[in-house]
Amino acid sequence: MSLDGAYDSGNIFAKILKGEMPCVKVYEDDAVLAFMDIFPQSPGHTLVVPKSPARNLLDLDDDALQAAMVRVKKIATAVRTALDPDGIVITQFNGAPAGQTVFHIHFHIIPRWEDKPLGRHGGTQADMDELKAQAERIAGALTD
Amino acid sequence: MSLDGAYDSGNIFAKILKGEMPCVKVYEDDAVLAFMDIFPQSPGHTLVVPKSPARNLLDLDDDALQAAMVRVKKIATAVRTALDPDGIVITQFNGAPAGQTVFHIHFHIIPRWEDKPLGRHGGTQADMDELKAQAERIAGALTD
Repeated sequence: MSLDGAYDSGNIFAKILKGEMPCVKVYEDDAVLAFMDIFPQSPGHTLVVPKSPARNLLDLDDDALQAAMVRVKKIATAVRTALDPDGIVITQFNGAPAGQTVFHIHFHIIPRWEDKPLGRHGGTQADMDELKAQAERIAGALTD
Repeated sequence: MSLDGAYDSGNIFAKILKGEMPCVKVYEDDAVLAFMDIFPQSPGHTLVVPKSPARNLLDLDDDALQAAMVRVKKIATAVRTALDPDGIVITQFNGAPAGQTVFHIHFHIIPRWEDKPLGRHGGTQADMDELKAQAERIAGALTD
């Protein structure tokens, strides 16, 4: 799918937002839901999903974008506190040729460590107990 | 450089913001300066640099972050209009192990085409005339 096209409410993140699919939740408020990526590129890989039904950045209204980014920063700060990475990558993909695989806008928070190469996204499904432990540590490090 | 440390005002983006170094400008207002990456990963690779003296996302205050992201969306929309890519990647690197090379916060807008692999960042310096032509096309496609 390219940058064009209508929002499809049958996507997996829409189902997670509606509670029809499970997720390993890190944070939720009126603007976003954040949960662990089940195909993490590194330990602690967290997704921040705006609740607005938008396919990508170009479709998201400015208010929702601003609200989302404040949450991305808040959760990235908690990831840093909880997991002490050497760096953090923020990515947001628009369109399949850019790497987007779920067509509901989302932001990736990917911790990096100096001695660990980045895994391929979608490579290996994570251990659920590990994801839950990471989510608890990140959620416990959230501050206002 | 890791996520820690103080802002160093001698970085190249600080010099560009002060007008002490040149850039191929796309857009400027009170919140950001946007210009072409001279080591583009794809044609049209544009950087959006908040004017706040912050090293990374974790250091940038929420107001400046929100202002910056509205500009990222505005300029990404113009990149799409001007260059008609199949996808657009937005990235923001925090700390050297995450890929950050200039320690002033910045956002990458990287157009993608289905048949073109992504270049290595810092691989080859772009032709200045090409960058200027791209910047003019993107600037000409900006809307309010």
